[in-house]
Amino acid sequence: MQRKAETQTIVRKKDNFSEWYSEILKRAKILDIRYPVKGVYVWYPYGYKVRNLVYGILRSLMDKEHEEVLFPLLIPKDELMKEKEHIKGFEDEVFWVTKGGSTELDIPLALRPTSETAIYPVFKVWIRSHRDLPLRIYQIVNTFRYETRHTRPLIRLREITSFKEAHTAHATRADAEEQVKKAVALYKSFFDQLAVPYVITRRPEWDKFPGAEYSIAFDTLMPDGRTMQIGTIHLLGESFARTFDIKYEDENGSLQFVNQTCYGISERCVASVIAIHGDDHGLVLPPTVAPIQVVIVPIVFSRKAGISNNGVESVSVEKACVAVYDELNEAGIRAFVDNSEDRPGAKYYRWEMKGVPLRIEIGPRDLKSNNCEFVRRDNTKRTHVPLSDVVPEVKRTLEGIQGDIHEAAKETLHANIYKNKSEDKMEMEELRRKAEHGIVSLFLCDRERCGQELEDQLGVSVLGKAVAVYEAEEKDKSEGECMICSRKAKRVYVARAY
Amino acid sequence: MQRKAETQTIVRKKDNFSEWYSEILKRAKILDIRYPVKGVYVWYPYGYKVRNLVYGILRSLMDKEHEEVLFPLLIPKDELMKEKEHIKGFEDEVFWVTKGGSTELDIPLALRPTSETAIYPVFKVWIRSHRDLPLRIYQIVNTFRYETRHTRPLIRLREITSFKEAHTAHATRADAEEQVKKAVALYKSFFDQLAVPYVITRRPEWDKFPGAEYSIAFDTLMPDGRTMQIGTIHLLGESFARTFDIKYEDENGSLQFVNQTCYGISERCVASVIAIHGDDHGLVLPPTVAPIQVVIVPIVFSRKAGISNNGVESVSVEKACVAVYDELNEAGIRAFVDNSEDRPGAKYYRWEMKGVPLRIEIGPRDLKSNNCEFVRRDNTKRTHVPLSDVVPEVKRTLEGIQGDIHEAAKETLHANIYKNKSEDKMEMEELRRKAEHGIVSLFLCDRERCGQELEDQLGVSVLGKAVAVYEAEEKDKSEGECMICSRKAKRVYVARAY
Repeated sequence: MQRKAETQTIVRKKDNFSEWYSEILKRAKILDIRYPVKGVYVWYPYGYKVRNLVYGILRSLMDKEHEEVLFPLLIPKDELMKEKEHIKGFEDEVFWVTKGGSTELDIPLALRPTSETAIYPVFKVWIRSHRDLPLRIYQIVNTFRYETRHTRPLIRLREITSFKEAHTAHATRADAEEQVKKAVALYKSFFDQLAVPYVITRRPEWDKFPGAEYSIAFDTLMPDGRTMQIGTIHLLGESFARTFDIKYEDENGSLQFVNQTCYGISERCVASVIAIHGDDHGLVLPPTVAPIQVVIVPIVFSRKAGISNNGVESVSVEKACVAVYDELNEAGIRAFVDNSEDRPGAKYYRWEMKGVPLRIEIGPRDLKSNNCEFVRRDNTKRTHVPLSDVVPEVKRTLEGIQGDIHEAAKETLHANIYKNKSEDKMEMEELRRKAEHGIVSLFLCDRERCGQELEDQLGVSVLGKAVAVYEAEEKDKSEGECMICSRKAKRVYVARAY
Repeated sequence: MQRKAETQTIVRKKDNFSEWYSEILKRAKILDIRYPVKGVYVWYPYGYKVRNLVYGILRSLMDKEHEEVLFPLLIPKDELMKEKEHIKGFEDEVFWVTKGGSTELDIPLALRPTSETAIYPVFKVWIRSHRDLPLRIYQIVNTFRYETRHTRPLIRLREITSFKEAHTAHATRADAEEQVKKAVALYKSFFDQLAVPYVITRRPEWDKFPGAEYSIAFDTLMPDGRTMQIGTIHLLGESFARTFDIKYEDENGSLQFVNQTCYGISERCVASVIAIHGDDHGLVLPPTVAPIQVVIVPIVFSRKAGISNNGVESVSVEKACVAVYDELNEAGIRAFVDNSEDRPGAKYYRWEMKGVPLRIEIGPRDLKSNNCEFVRRDNTKRTHVPLSDVVPEVKRTLEGIQGDIHEAAKETLHANIYKNKSEDKMEMEELRRKAEHGIVSLFLCDRERCGQELEDQLGVSVLGKAVAVYEAEEKDKSEGECMICSRKAKRVYVARAY
């Protein structure tokens, strides 16, 4: 009975992305949305394994130049309120703890919406001398936002369960700016390993992180044509250092304010992997983050189905499956033999839904020719592979899948960036239609009024000026006329954003 | 300047354990206690590395038969209040979120003090059939207690940052009891790997987990003669299943309540490692959880000190150090070369404080004889080791340290368990004195009144009846007279407890 419900086809991704996304989270057992508090969800074991692999990659990148720490969740109201710009950006979204047992607390405690105001008072005591700099730390923690908008699993949450936030302090502004560049490179490497493509922009003044001098953001394009911010990097300069009095003694013995940066990534990184690569059969996981990279399915008649069964054959098939499993396991590949009683079709369905990149089928006929069959999750291609070559062929195939889904995703992104040429300007109505499917590049001046008007007219958000991702882009310094006021302007990306 | 302050001797552990403990946390950079909220602290990078190694061992044990999940922090008041026994145990200790932004919440949200009431409503929807059982999950999360007592880093906290809680559901009570035994075995293996000795007892009725049928606890003996509870395992039976209506369909198609267990370990496991093994020079970390297992110190004249220096010699010493490092690293041993400008003495001090189990010194004279010197952290013994044997000798030595500190800790524990013999009863006053230094084993009946009276008279807590840890103990079924009422009684452990 259960099986039947599970194998019902789901809504097609391109017809209704939102419904498809919810269905996939449920059927692939990523998140359970049935928790009785708005905007908070339960990670299933399978989802949490994906989460751990994704954050494992992030940790290994961070650990090269950062140290992991852990700061408290609770921030006293007076500390949170110290940085005026900062609190303005968060005050409507803070959850407040006001009682302990039946006692009213003297000072309400905020659940961290982000940790600047928890960490920087401690930076003040950690940093004494230029020898303590640079200081580069990060933590992976739960953070909280009292979201009044429509919440959505992994994307818009009241409890962000897995916020990786980095905080750095430097002697000079140049060092801090250098750190911003390093963080951009680190995030590029991270999303590249997830096969998630992105555009990188410098957010307009009116949309930067509260308290920052400027903010750089990674956005990816979701299948419904909206962009989703998946990472941000902020140059804080001296603003927080002045608020929290974070000074160091330089080589000449005089006191200087530190220069700071911070940068964060939430579980939206997991959402982007699911949304971008998945298809109408379920998840398609990049091998880098697949809890099972290879599922091995013995093709034998089911005992349960009651069909007469060549016992000798099925024993040797199962032996061959275990032998392949052992070889793969030995080679550090995450493999699994599905020797359950289900029919092969039910097994295919199950592991396709869970996004396992590669299936290996072994049946009696394969064994006779010392072969097995590979079936790729991403493109369903079948190939015969000699059993003696399984390990190198699996490695090659997984690399191929990783590369191919990345390329396909990049192509989709770039095919949906529409460039409004200066000489051949699109009309507003045309731009609005384009913006329904992707990102539009157009000329806009820096003034907030023009930005706001354009956002209203097109129903978009201004992402900002592109930050060079590839060498070629660095040269795009073209100028044109602002779409609104016709003054000189640079190109910006705009899109409907999550 | 800084150096001088750092090398000041600290209070001796046996003179004032409490002060020694605080000093060690600070100097070895485990926790920073200067966060402006009572009972919550900041994990330094070094402390967090130790924490991650400790929890890595726990995770690898758990992962064999449990799946990791993640449930929300916030529990709606009505859910938390459902289990009456349970909430009675926690209601004075719950932090309440009552506001989001400036909006009063309709239903106050509790910060989980533990997650039964968050998880079991979801178990209700996860569990349908006997095929879904056993269900065994765990999570490692922050939990909160509004402690009004004196708080203490890693030991009594308002934010427990690293609570590992497991929750299981079974078809029968026998299966659940079997799981309790498995959990005991798992925790034994965990604490054995930390070289932390323990007694295991079944808590008296009046001190069991709220909502449980019975509770089994691991306690270790701290250097001040008090016991600290470091792990608990609860048989919940059907109580929560009835409250949260968690049923499964058995093989005959009829609905049955599940039988449950839960068991937890907090960062007290890290506290116990620090408290039990450390000495007057700092931490002594078991090699299993030492972020640096071997520190390599080149013995060369410091350039900074301005002493004339044989450049050729120091270059070859540093080369030899790096070669040893490479070999150890290759062999999977966590090693570090301290080639800072500090004098060797300052380096010794630093790495002793941080508890690095083994130091290798290499100087020009050692090189001439193709040797190096090993210095063990635990017993300060020096040995000469041929450079060609470094890897096997390091492995042997680390194993030796691990075993020796475990043995020493077990001896200390057992030397401080005082058995009150039936035929040769100690007087109350003598027992009270014994209980100031350790655990007392005495006869006590099951009645709460007797337990309370004994606790009052001796200033102790009743830990409970010993649960067999080693085969030999299983046979201790001796009976005697209750210390208070003289009725027939079994042996229990009592001690002053944290």
